[in-house]
Amino acid sequence: MQLKTYFPILGWGRRYNRQTLTSDLVAAVIVTIMLIPQSLAYALLAGLPPEVGLYASVLPLVAYAVFGTSSALAVGPVAVVSLMTAAAVGKLAAEGTADYASAAILLALLSGAMLTVMGLFRLGFIANFLSHPVISGFITASGIIIATSQVGGLLGIKTEGHALPDLVMSIAANIGTINWYTAAVGAVALGLLLWIRLDLKNWLNRFGLPKGVATIIVRAGPVVVVFLTMAWSALFDLGGKGVALVGQVPQGLPMLSLPSFNLDTMQALLLPALIISVVGFVESISVAQTLAAKRRERIDPNQELIGLGASNLAAAIGGGYPVTGGFARSVVNFDAGAATPAAGAFTAIGIAGATLLLTPFLALLPKATLAATIVLAVLTLVDFSILKRAWAYSKADFAAVAATLAGTLLLGVEVGISLGVATSILVFLYRSSQPHAAVVGRVPGTEHYRNVKRHKVDTVPGVLSIRIDESLYFANARYLEDLIQAQVAADPEVKDVVLMCSAVNSIDMSALESLEAIQQHLGDMGVRLHLSEVKGPVMDRLTGTEFLHHLSGGVHLSQHQAMAATAALRLAEPTHPAPVLREAMT
Amino acid sequence: MQLKTYFPILGWGRRYNRQTLTSDLVAAVIVTIMLIPQSLAYALLAGLPPEVGLYASVLPLVAYAVFGTSSALAVGPVAVVSLMTAAAVGKLAAEGTADYASAAILLALLSGAMLTVMGLFRLGFIANFLSHPVISGFITASGIIIATSQVGGLLGIKTEGHALPDLVMSIAANIGTINWYTAAVGAVALGLLLWIRLDLKNWLNRFGLPKGVATIIVRAGPVVVVFLTMAWSALFDLGGKGVALVGQVPQGLPMLSLPSFNLDTMQALLLPALIISVVGFVESISVAQTLAAKRRERIDPNQELIGLGASNLAAAIGGGYPVTGGFARSVVNFDAGAATPAAGAFTAIGIAGATLLLTPFLALLPKATLAATIVLAVLTLVDFSILKRAWAYSKADFAAVAATLAGTLLLGVEVGISLGVATSILVFLYRSSQPHAAVVGRVPGTEHYRNVKRHKVDTVPGVLSIRIDESLYFANARYLEDLIQAQVAADPEVKDVVLMCSAVNSIDMSALESLEAIQQHLGDMGVRLHLSEVKGPVMDRLTGTEFLHHLSGGVHLSQHQAMAATAALRLAEPTHPAPVLREAMT
Repeated sequence: MQLKTYFPILGWGRRYNRQTLTSDLVAAVIVTIMLIPQSLAYALLAGLPPEVGLYASVLPLVAYAVFGTSSALAVGPVAVVSLMTAAAVGKLAAEGTADYASAAILLALLSGAMLTVMGLFRLGFIANFLSHPVISGFITASGIIIATSQVGGLLGIKTEGHALPDLVMSIAANIGTINWYTAAVGAVALGLLLWIRLDLKNWLNRFGLPKGVATIIVRAGPVVVVFLTMAWSALFDLGGKGVALVGQVPQGLPMLSLPSFNLDTMQALLLPALIISVVGFVESISVAQTLAAKRRERIDPNQELIGLGASNLAAAIGGGYPVTGGFARSVVNFDAGAATPAAGAFTAIGIAGATLLLTPFLALLPKATLAATIVLAVLTLVDFSILKRAWAYSKADFAAVAATLAGTLLLGVEVGISLGVATSILVFLYRSSQPHAAVVGRVPGTEHYRNVKRHKVDTVPGVLSIRIDESLYFANARYLEDLIQAQVAADPEVKDVVLMCSAVNSIDMSALESLEAIQQHLGDMGVRLHLSEVKGPVMDRLTGTEFLHHLSGGVHLSQHQAMAATAALRLAEPTHPAPVLREAMT
Repeated sequence: MQLKTYFPILGWGRRYNRQTLTSDLVAAVIVTIMLIPQSLAYALLAGLPPEVGLYASVLPLVAYAVFGTSSALAVGPVAVVSLMTAAAVGKLAAEGTADYASAAILLALLSGAMLTVMGLFRLGFIANFLSHPVISGFITASGIIIATSQVGGLLGIKTEGHALPDLVMSIAANIGTINWYTAAVGAVALGLLLWIRLDLKNWLNRFGLPKGVATIIVRAGPVVVVFLTMAWSALFDLGGKGVALVGQVPQGLPMLSLPSFNLDTMQALLLPALIISVVGFVESISVAQTLAAKRRERIDPNQELIGLGASNLAAAIGGGYPVTGGFARSVVNFDAGAATPAAGAFTAIGIAGATLLLTPFLALLPKATLAATIVLAVLTLVDFSILKRAWAYSKADFAAVAATLAGTLLLGVEVGISLGVATSILVFLYRSSQPHAAVVGRVPGTEHYRNVKRHKVDTVPGVLSIRIDESLYFANARYLEDLIQAQVAADPEVKDVVLMCSAVNSIDMSALESLEAIQQHLGDMGVRLHLSEVKGPVMDRLTGTEFLHHLSGGVHLSQHQAMAATAALRLAEPTHPAPVLREAMT
C-alpha cells in the first residue's frame, strides 16, 4: 500500500491494457509534434542551447510517468519557468558559457530536491500562499515580458534583461541594427502560426476534412512552419545574410551525469530554486486538478510534488533544465485521449528519436521561427481581466494583483512574485489587526443575535453585547482593549459586558493578556465580563488560566443563555431597575 | 483643537500651577541623579564617548515635554536601544572614529523621522506585530548580551561582538590579560551597587530614617559609587596602573548641527533604524500605558510616536544618539510624583547643568564603575519565566519566544527580533491555513448549534452542517474544498450542505473561487449548498457575485432557519423520506 502511494505506476500499471496503450500512443504522437519546436524555443528563452530543451523533454517525462498521479499532465520545458531560469542563472554567468549551462542544471537539481522534500514532508500547503490573484498577475506579466524578449529574435537585434524596462530600452537602442532578412522570416513565421491557430481548422473543414484529421494537422502546423523556414534558410543561404540560425547541434543524447557542485553558485540559486519550485508546482497542480475533475479522477498534491521533484532531478541528470507541467500541452494531451501517465513516457521516446534523427537538419533553422513560436504560445497567458475582476470584488485582492503585475514587469520575476505574496499576506494581516466588531441584539422571536446597526433587534439596557469578528492575537489584542474601553466609557449605565466569541477561532498569549487587562479595567469600574459561544478549541486553551479563574461574569454556551444569566444577576441586585427590553435603533 | 492634539503641552500647560511645579521639580531632581551615571554608561554601551549620553539626555527630554502625552515617561538613553545602536553602527564603522559617532547621530535622525511619519500617518498599529512573547524574549536576551558585554569592562579585558558567541569567545581568548586593579574596582562597584539595591533601604530604616529620605538616598546611591571610585582613582593613580578611565570629556554642550549625510551609510541604517524605532516605541508605550492606567490617565499612541520622533530628531541635532522612554527611570519618575511632561524638561536642565559643571571630574572615573552600573540595570530585564508560561499556554507562543531568545543571543539583536516577528506571523498564518472545522447539530431545546463531537446535539439525516472556524482566504481556500469534498463523499445520503459562517470574518477572491468550485462539484452530485449566519461585511462583498447568483440552496439568517429551510425542501421532494431527528453520537 505504502509503495503504491509513492509509485503510482504500480497502481495504474496493473490495469494497463491494449485500449489504454492505443490512447496513450495517439496522444504521445500529437504531443511530440507539438513539443519539438516548443522545447527548442523554450531552451532559447532560458538562454540555453536549443538541444537542452530536447534533453529536458526526455528523462523528466519518464520520471513523471513513474511518480506522477495525473493521467493528462504533460511535463517538460514551459515558458514561465524558462523565463525564471534565465533570470536566475543570468545573474551568475554569461549566456553561452559552460558556467551558464551548468548553473541551469544545478537549478533543476535544487528545484527537484526541494519539490521531493516538500512532497515527502507533505508541505504542499506552502503553495496555498500563492493566491489566485497573485498567480494570475504573475502569469500575465510573465507573458508580456516573454513576448517582449522575443522581439529581438524576430528582428535580429540584440536585447538584454528579464524585466520590461531593460528589454524596451535595449530594443530602442538597437532598433537601427535590424536585419531585414530576419525580420522577414519572423513576420512570415508569425503570420503563418497565427493563421494556423485562428483559421486553418475552419479552412480544412470547408474542404471537407474530418474534424479529427483537421485537428491533427493544426497541431502539426508549427512543425510545418519549422520545416518551411528551414528550407527557406537552406535555399537562400539566410545564414550568410546575417540571419541567426540554430547552428550545429550535437547529435544524440548526453551521457547521464551529476552537475558539478559549487557552493557559492548553489547558495545564490537557493531562493530562485524555491520560487521556481513553488510557481512550477502551482502552475502544474492547477492544470492537473482541472483536468482530473473533468474525468472525476483524483490527484494527490503531495505525490505530485514528488512527481515533479523526480522530473527535475531527472532533468538535472539528463543535462536539461527546470521543467514542470505545462498548461497548453497538458490540455492537448488530455484532448488527444491520454489515458495514463505512460503517454508521457511515449512522448519521451518520440523526443529521444527526434533528437537522434532531426538534429542535423536543425542547424539551418532560423532562430526567428522559434521566437515566433514563443510569442504565439505566451500571448494566451496574457489576461488583464483579472485586474478588473479583483477591483470589483475587493481592493485587497486588487492590491495583490497590481503589486505582482507591476513588480514582475518592472523589477523582474523573482521580485515580482515575492512582492505579490508579501502584499497578500500583509493585507491579510492588516485586516485581521483591525477587526470588525458589532454590538449585537436579539432578533425578535428567535434566539439569534445580530448587529444592531444592520438588523432590527432588541437590546437590554445595562448589558453591552459585543461580537468581535476575528481571532484574538497579538496584532489586534490592543485594538480590542481600546474598543471595549471606549464602548463602556460611552455608556455609564453598563453593568455587564458580554463578549460573544462565535467568530473568535483562537486566542493567543498576547490576547489573553489583553483580556486580563480588560477584565481588570472593567472590574475597577464595577462592570462584569462574560463570554458566550466560546468554541471548544479556544475553551480548551483558556481552561486553567488565571483569566478564566478570575472571570467576574461567566462563560455561557450561547449568547441567549448569557443574556438570561445577566438578567438573573440584575434581578438579584434590588438597587437596579429590572431590565426592560428596548428596541435598538437600526 | 487640532493644534492641541499635536502639541499636548498646550493642554496641560494651561493647567500648570505651583503644586504641579513642585511635584515636577522633586521628580526631576531624583531622575537627574539617576540619569547621570546611566547616561554615561549607556553611551559606552553604544560604543560612543560618555558625554554623548549626556547630550542625549538634554534636548530629547525637552522635545518630549512639548510633544509627549505621558506625564511620567522618562525619555533618554536606554540599555536595549544602546545595544541595538552599537550593533547597527558597529557594522559600518570602527568604534571611536568620527564616522562611528556621526553614524549614530544619523541613526537617531532616521529613527526620529520614521517615528514622526508613523505618528502623522497613524501607523502605530505596526507596533502590534511585536507580540508580547517576542518582546519578552527579546528583552531577556538583550539583558544577557548586555551583561556579558560588560564583563570586559569589569575585568579590564577587550571583548568583541554584539551576540553571545562572539562575546564569550573573546572573553575566553583574553581572560589572561585581566587587569587586577580594574577587576577590583569592578568588584567593589558591583558589590556596592548590589548592596544599595538590596539592603540599604532596610538598613537606613533600621536607623530610623523616614521612608522618603531613605528612598532618595538609595536612588542617589549609584552617584555616590561614581564619586567613591573617582576618588579611589585619583588617590591611587589607577589610570597609571592600567585601569581604563573615562578620560577628558569636552566641557559644555555641543553646538546644534545637522548630521552629515552619506547616502550609503543612510541606506545601510534604514532597516536598523526601523527596528530600533519599533522596539523603542513598544518599550516606551508599554511603560507609559501601565503608568497612565494607574492614574486613570489616557495616552495617545500615535501622538506618542510623534513625541518619540521629536525626541530622536532632537537627539540628532544635539549630538546624541537614539533615545526612547526607559522602564526603570519612568517608574522612578512616576513614584517621585512627576505630574506633567515638564518634569522631563527640568531633568534636561539638571543634566545640562551637570554637563557644564561635572565633566572636569569625570576624566578620572574608571569605566569599570559604569560597567557595573549597566550590569545592575539590565539584570532586572532578564526573566526566563516567559518561556515556562508560553509553553504552558500554547506551543505557538513558545515557538515565538524561543526563536526570539535564541536568535537574539546567537545571531544578534536585529536578526533575533526579525526572527521572532517572522515566527509569530508564520505560526499565525500556518494555523489559519489549517482551520478547525466542526460538523454541528442542535443543542436540544435551543436554537443553538454546536460541534457533534463535543456536545450532545441532534442532527438531521441528509443534511450536513459544517461550521468552518476561520476567515476564508487564499491560504485555506483549497483546504476547504478538500474538506467538503471528503465529508460529502463519506455520506451518500447527503442532499443539503449548510456552511455555517458565524466564524467566517472575510472571504477573499481565492476563497470565492473555491466556493464556486465547491458549488460546482456539489451540483454535479445533486447536492444543494446553503450558507447560514453570514455576517454583514461578508454579505456586502458576496452580493452581486456569480457565486451568490447561482447558489443552489440559499443564504439563511441563522443556522436554525437554514435547518427549517432544508426540512421544507426535503418535504417538497416526495421521493425522500421525511427528515427524522437523530441523536448524534458524542
